[in-house]
Amino acid sequence: MSNPSILILPGDGIGPEVMAEVRKVIDWFGANTDAKFDVSEDLVGGAAYDAHGTPLHDDTMAKAQSVDAVLLGAVGGPKYDVLDFSVKPERGLLRLRKEMDLYANLRPAQCFDALADFSSLKRDVVAGLDIMIVRELTSGIYFGEPRGIMDDNEGGRVGINTQRYTTDEIRRVARSAFELARRRGNKVCSMEKANVMESGILWREEVQWVHDNEYPDVELSHMYADAGAMQLCRWPKQFDVIVTDNLFGDLLSDAAAMLTGSLGMLPSASLGQPMENGRPKALYEPVHGSAPDIAGQGKANPIACILSFAMALRYSFDMGDKADLVERAVEKVLADGLRTADLLGEEGVAPVSTSEMGDAVIAAI
Amino acid sequence: MSNPSILILPGDGIGPEVMAEVRKVIDWFGANTDAKFDVSEDLVGGAAYDAHGTPLHDDTMAKAQSVDAVLLGAVGGPKYDVLDFSVKPERGLLRLRKEMDLYANLRPAQCFDALADFSSLKRDVVAGLDIMIVRELTSGIYFGEPRGIMDDNEGGRVGINTQRYTTDEIRRVARSAFELARRRGNKVCSMEKANVMESGILWREEVQWVHDNEYPDVELSHMYADAGAMQLCRWPKQFDVIVTDNLFGDLLSDAAAMLTGSLGMLPSASLGQPMENGRPKALYEPVHGSAPDIAGQGKANPIACILSFAMALRYSFDMGDKADLVERAVEKVLADGLRTADLLGEEGVAPVSTSEMGDAVIAAI
Ligand SMILES: CC(C)[C@H](C(=O)O)[C@@H](O)C(=O)O
Ligand SMILES: CC(C)[C@H](C(=O)O)[C@@H](O)C(=O)O
Repeated sequence: MSNPSILILPGDGIGPEVMAEVRKVIDWFGANTDAKFDVSEDLVGGAAYDAHGTPLHDDTMAKAQSVDAVLLGAVGGPKYDVLDFSVKPERGLLRLRKEMDLYANLRPAQCFDALADFSSLKRDVVAGLDIMIVRELTSGIYFGEPRGIMDDNEGGRVGINTQRYTTDEIRRVARSAFELARRRGNKVCSMEKANVMESGILWREEVQWVHDNEYPDVELSHMYADAGAMQLCRWPKQFDVIVTDNLFGDLLSDAAAMLTGSLGMLPSASLGQPMENGRPKALYEPVHGSAPDIAGQGKANPIACILSFAMALRYSFDMGDKADLVERAVEKVLADGLRTADLLGEEGVAPVSTSEMGDAVIAAI
Repeated sequence: MSNPSILILPGDGIGPEVMAEVRKVIDWFGANTDAKFDVSEDLVGGAAYDAHGTPLHDDTMAKAQSVDAVLLGAVGGPKYDVLDFSVKPERGLLRLRKEMDLYANLRPAQCFDALADFSSLKRDVVAGLDIMIVRELTSGIYFGEPRGIMDDNEGGRVGINTQRYTTDEIRRVARSAFELARRRGNKVCSMEKANVMESGILWREEVQWVHDNEYPDVELSHMYADAGAMQLCRWPKQFDVIVTDNLFGDLLSDAAAMLTGSLGMLPSASLGQPMENGRPKALYEPVHGSAPDIAGQGKANPIACILSFAMALRYSFDMGDKADLVERAVEKVLADGLRTADLLGEEGVAPVSTSEMGDAVIAAI
């Protein structure tokens, strides 16, 4: 049997430097355990545009479809702001999500004990926080047609996007949320704007349907997304799993990530249908962006990206014990006081570099 | 000359009881100053549905169009959850906004010094916070066509809503934001998802156009709405005026309001075009909702609603000095330690009732 395959797409900004640390972790597992992977690497985002004039080459898309898991760093940067919408770095990422049909985006918002004081929230509000946001990732207003900018026939222009959700699209991501809840706190809160949007009404009804017919044992509640934003800021620990659409998920998961104080620490998994080998189509990436302002300076925190690989071990390769190993190593280096530049503020702590942090995690494994 | 006219729509839940306190304030001004108003009252939301089978009677709509300012309490409640979308309490409010063409929703997110400890954020992150969110209120995905729930021809259903913005709609709300900024910190941050949505690209371009052609003296920046949600949670004091669309504004302003710790304290103004008498079409309402769980118990905090009337004094009636008077009175009762039940937590403080708080504010004026 051949080794499982991983495609690495470092992307832009700090993507390459944090991904270099992930490579070290993968190599360590290859040298010291039975977790051996065939790793290849390619371009995405601005880096792909610079090389090929497109943020995702068709060959790269084909590779992504054929591997067992994709690891992505980050895309985007001010250099590419002037590009046409259709070739912006983000389009590369959105194409991967859409064509791989990665409908369930899992974003844990977790507060690392050693870092609770970095949150802008009070310690007791965030310490121990561990919620999972499941964001629909392949539909909604990100992809709905019609869309575009047209003349409005009165001398002005009109910008249009369409929010569109089908029964199937809602039900499948709801199932992902209920499955996860069963392995966690057994509670799902679904968020939409059913008081204003018909697509929100359908969302609420279909999530309720999945609950009543397939997961009656899981506790389900519904909340308007604006109230959800409020409650996340007020008392996030009331939540276990949150399921929501693509656009609300974008805002709510970013807010939640920031609230933990651990933004540079948070991974994500984007999962699709099972492939022939039973593994789900999967892409793993840190929640943070490409941070062009600190790129190339050895200041970036590689932990979010390393933990994204841990998620790959868990969700793609059924190696939960090895994922635990990585996660515990991360906790240890934090408890030991190691901090990259994004985590400074405590007295007497000098920052370690991106690669020192990577090395420390490996040593702790 | 006849007195300026005000239509009061108390609505549902705690709406009537907080509005009763506003009435007292209006009456006080009428008895003791030259600020005399002709006040009428009518139904909106669930209360209107109970009486007329519609959340806003046409006669009420006509009255709202003819008065100088509308004061609204709150709409909605679990009792009305079973109603059809078209007659839900919220539709009454949305019809007022749309038909009065109240395109600029001003939502101050302010942290009252005496209340900084009620925030889930650390004191230094919120103390002294004073930002103004300007939310577009008459367009976008709240009102765009096509919309609805249809059969998807595969045995399922599809829910559709349309985000639609025109040049004019964006420019006019941008102007409101720039005007406000000039009277404050002279800084506007515009938020959208131009990296994902064409309507966001148009938004960004048109806001920039208004800036370059009409308000080059105001500092303008652009931020993706997800990053905006993050930054609001991290360091809200970086903002002065934020301008954003209807849906993003709904989430971001609610999050910002909650962050201040002063949710029961925050007013809002929704302004439209100038009428013949030069006053803008205007509706004022608290940011908080109808809070059905505490309705009728004398526990509600009337301050948000009283401050909404203060905004009316300022924006509709050009009585900024009297608005100051009300605002200073509110600060005084808070400094004196008066707290309604939503603001408990300090040791040795017993709550005052809704009407005691109202009386105290009047005494302080
Ligand atoms: C980069 C961008 C297209 C993306 C999104 O909006 O989905 C990002 O914000 C995210 O949340 O992964
Ligand atoms: C009640 C509801 C229709 C409304 C909205 O979504 O605009 C409310 O949340 C608000 O922010 O005023």
